Amino acid sequence: ALGLLASGAPQPPNIVLMLMDDMGWGDLGVYGEPSRETPNLDRMAAEGMLFPNFYSANPLCSPSRAALLTGRLPIRNGFYTSNAHARNAYTPQEIMGGIPNSEHLLPELLKKAGYTNKIVGKWHLGHRPQFHPLKHGFDEWFGSPNCHFGPYDNKVKPNIPVYRDWEMVGRFYEEFPINLKTGEANLTQLYLQEALDFIRTQHARQSPFFLYWAIDATHAPVYASRPFLGTSLRGRYGDAVREIDDSVGKILSLLQNLGISKNTFVFFTSDNGAALVSAPKQGGSNGPFLCGKQTTFEGGMREPAIAWWPGHIAAGQVSHQLGSIMDLFTTSLSLAGLKPPSDRVIDGLDLLPNMLQGHTMDRPIFYYRGNTLMAVTLGQYKAHFWTWTNSWEEFRQGIDFCPGQNVSGVTTHTQEEHTELPLIFHLGRDPGERFPLSFASDEYQDVLSRMTQVVQRHQKSLVPGQPQLNVCSQAVMNWAPPGCEKLGKCLTPPESVPEKCSWPH
Amino acid sequence: ALGLLASGAPQPPNIVLMLMDDMGWGDLGVYGEPSRETPNLDRMAAEGMLFPNFYSANPLCSPSRAALLTGRLPIRNGFYTSNAHARNAYTPQEIMGGIPNSEHLLPELLKKAGYTNKIVGKWHLGHRPQFHPLKHGFDEWFGSPNCHFGPYDNKVKPNIPVYRDWEMVGRFYEEFPINLKTGEANLTQLYLQEALDFIRTQHARQSPFFLYWAIDATHAPVYASRPFLGTSLRGRYGDAVREIDDSVGKILSLLQNLGISKNTFVFFTSDNGAALVSAPKQGGSNGPFLCGKQTTFEGGMREPAIAWWPGHIAAGQVSHQLGSIMDLFTTSLSLAGLKPPSDRVIDGLDLLPNMLQGHTMDRPIFYYRGNTLMAVTLGQYKAHFWTWTNSWEEFRQGIDFCPGQNVSGVTTHTQEEHTELPLIFHLGRDPGERFPLSFASDEYQDVLSRMTQVVQRHQKSLVPGQPQLNVCSQAVMNWAPPGCEKLGKCLTPPESVPEKCSWPH
Ligand SMILES: [Ca+2]
Ligand SMILES: [Ca+2]
Repeated sequence: ALGLLASGAPQPPNIVLMLMDDMGWGDLGVYGEPSRETPNLDRMAAEGMLFPNFYSANPLCSPSRAALLTGRLPIRNGFYTSNAHARNAYTPQEIMGGIPNSEHLLPELLKKAGYTNKIVGKWHLGHRPQFHPLKHGFDEWFGSPNCHFGPYDNKVKPNIPVYRDWEMVGRFYEEFPINLKTGEANLTQLYLQEALDFIRTQHARQSPFFLYWAIDATHAPVYASRPFLGTSLRGRYGDAVREIDDSVGKILSLLQNLGISKNTFVFFTSDNGAALVSAPKQGGSNGPFLCGKQTTFEGGMREPAIAWWPGHIAAGQVSHQLGSIMDLFTTSLSLAGLKPPSDRVIDGLDLLPNMLQGHTMDRPIFYYRGNTLMAVTLGQYKAHFWTWTNSWEEFRQGIDFCPGQNVSGVTTHTQEEHTELPLIFHLGRDPGERFPLSFASDEYQDVLSRMTQVVQRHQKSLVPGQPQLNVCSQAVMNWAPPGCEKLGKCLTPPESVPEKCSWPH
Repeated sequence: ALGLLASGAPQPPNIVLMLMDDMGWGDLGVYGEPSRETPNLDRMAAEGMLFPNFYSANPLCSPSRAALLTGRLPIRNGFYTSNAHARNAYTPQEIMGGIPNSEHLLPELLKKAGYTNKIVGKWHLGHRPQFHPLKHGFDEWFGSPNCHFGPYDNKVKPNIPVYRDWEMVGRFYEEFPINLKTGEANLTQLYLQEALDFIRTQHARQSPFFLYWAIDATHAPVYASRPFLGTSLRGRYGDAVREIDDSVGKILSLLQNLGISKNTFVFFTSDNGAALVSAPKQGGSNGPFLCGKQTTFEGGMREPAIAWWPGHIAAGQVSHQLGSIMDLFTTSLSLAGLKPPSDRVIDGLDLLPNMLQGHTMDRPIFYYRGNTLMAVTLGQYKAHFWTWTNSWEEFRQGIDFCPGQNVSGVTTHTQEEHTELPLIFHLGRDPGERFPLSFASDEYQDVLSRMTQVVQRHQKSLVPGQPQLNVCSQAVMNWAPPGCEKLGKCLTPPESVPEKCSWPH
């Protein structure tokens, strides 16, 4: 039964968004991973709704996360670079930019409906003080502003801090060890405990809560805690997946044991495709799809996605709705009884009509790389206006975003423009983007004219945000985050010399 | 409850082997096909046991079928060619050879336990009278000796006949139309009806039965009946899969409605990997695996596989047992209370200890192409002794068994020998065979020494059968099969001029 808020209004459902890092579409048993080691996620799908056609908003971590929390494409919310044509960009430590104050983040809005909001794990929307998640609507934070890269020397580059709320409580590779040789780290267990504690506390407080569980064990360097290390048929990456799967099971069990599963909407997805550049030991699987992280092929942006809300979303459903990570913004607002902001373009749709009533909504999926619209999907068809994996120079150095895959004229190592005559694929017959439609076919002509209209409408009304990922400076790195004094861990930043960030691909 | 035979002995379970044609590992929802259009097969898996590591004995139709029915590798039972090194061969109409009389086929043996045996669909073990399935243990047949290729002119080449038992009842493209333009054919409906009728009749007779349901709608030219045409998100191939899925559902439902599901062992699999050379319109999906039909990469020989036996095989299990199509021979004998022949090598294992008690058996999977051992899998490791897809000449003509895939030094277009230093892959971390282990690694050395022992043992004791696929003659084709007189459809064969068959890849 729904509870009541202090105001007497019926209490909206709790919201748990589980966002994985670099986990691929093909990494779950229910999506066909041959080792099938995700019994909890597979059960979550069997008890809920599986989305085989769910997309990230970008093939990289931070733009994708900014899109989730704003409901807007990175080209609108500023999480892109204009330093070069069609470049992938994210938020390394030295980035000057971050989430603009002008953006309304999901937790900010949920507060208005009485939610208590917590982020567990990776923020990745900026390192400078003004970008702190507690300044953008979150009430609590346990996690880090960036990936768990390292170890760094704390001279040229500081180790990434781990925060509890406003203050750092240590750094990766120091207070929060990660053994790169063995892959051992207990971070997923910490993140699990934070989630369980938060759920218990908010339940006791009778407060509706929003938990953004943004864990990162599947991002290279992948890690798992000792009980999971060496247990997967898939190696270390699989160990990380198994620990995550186990944790998801524990979170869902807690919701059931507390009797709040029917009042808690849970969604599981990932921020971008598996990083095949790190495969096979440090990267996952994109199943039958082409290429991986960094690319605008399906492997870069099609994501595992499961919705779970017992008593509301019927069990065992598969939805072929084209879904987007940005829909989690609008859907969450809808769950809270809120309308999305009306003063700006919101790209996310409310998926509740699809999840609850089975309505399918027509909508395009846009695939951007930096400032460039690379591709669009409409219904079953995908058109590529630009193709690029990475440069020949990088490729020859062994950086390969499509290992073992090579589709002639498609997985190109030069930026190829197809805006006049896009490469079009039928993703139903050809999910692997291997067989472009013949330009001369009626099918091609029909699709192209529909696509063109949609793209023109999109581009005509597009107002790009101020690009946040153009300028870098060593001085903005995490030298002396708040709380460092208490720990005696303040480092001295160098002088600020802002410069153009370099984005190689 | 088990019935009793006329002899008073308890009645062994019925056996239904559903063998698909060119259906790929990735074609079922439960194996991750993105359109997820196989609700009946997915339910069959949820009610039974899924095998993600199940293999054909050959990447082509007839050798694979000969292996299933004899429990023996094609190199032993004669279903190979020695006309050239490492050539794929099967049984076209003009083949002189077929299943040798010296081989003991599964239905022959099951007869001894009182089974009534029926083959529905494609036989493919030889066209000449001595190879007729009713001479090899089957009591009934509705189907064809070959694929539904055509239409032929009945002058240079006759259309393939369709048999009922001993006599032909028509020919494909004549009495049994297939519309190549629309893809319409009602053959799957005919094959479904034959299965349902046989099950009902044998149930009424209280006879244990063996149904070998070898349907072929997913072999190019793919077809579906009118109610299914145009219904799949995947195009015509998907229409065929949907009709098959629907038919599987109807067969399982009948078993349940008759109350004999607990006394009927059902196994679903395919004869070889999806024919990517015919994709995307006429070929399926091998999921994350490399290449397809014709090759000894995983895409050529790893198959979908589901065991279903309510009340005996517990629901919802996944078995990582390395399984083989040849195990269906030995397992079926075991179900019937029979021992496999002891006067010859049987490659198939009895899977019942795995399916019923969860025992995992160590065993190698051998990947032959013609007379050549191309690769072996042991545990999680696969070693390639030879790599070849097809010749440069064929490849340049557009014949591509690995479209969009290219693993340097692996998907070779010349026959590359690696017998001294095999390419070894870890199929758990790297199911797509993209990242060979480093020759210098300890892992490589460990695995190689174990592999070498297994292969040496195999090769030392191997006695190749007389190759059946070496000699062809136009005269042996289906000019005047028995029953042609009644139909007025006898054609005049040309003079017999036996010659070496040519196998291009
Ligand atoms: Ca990521
Ligand atoms: Ca076949």
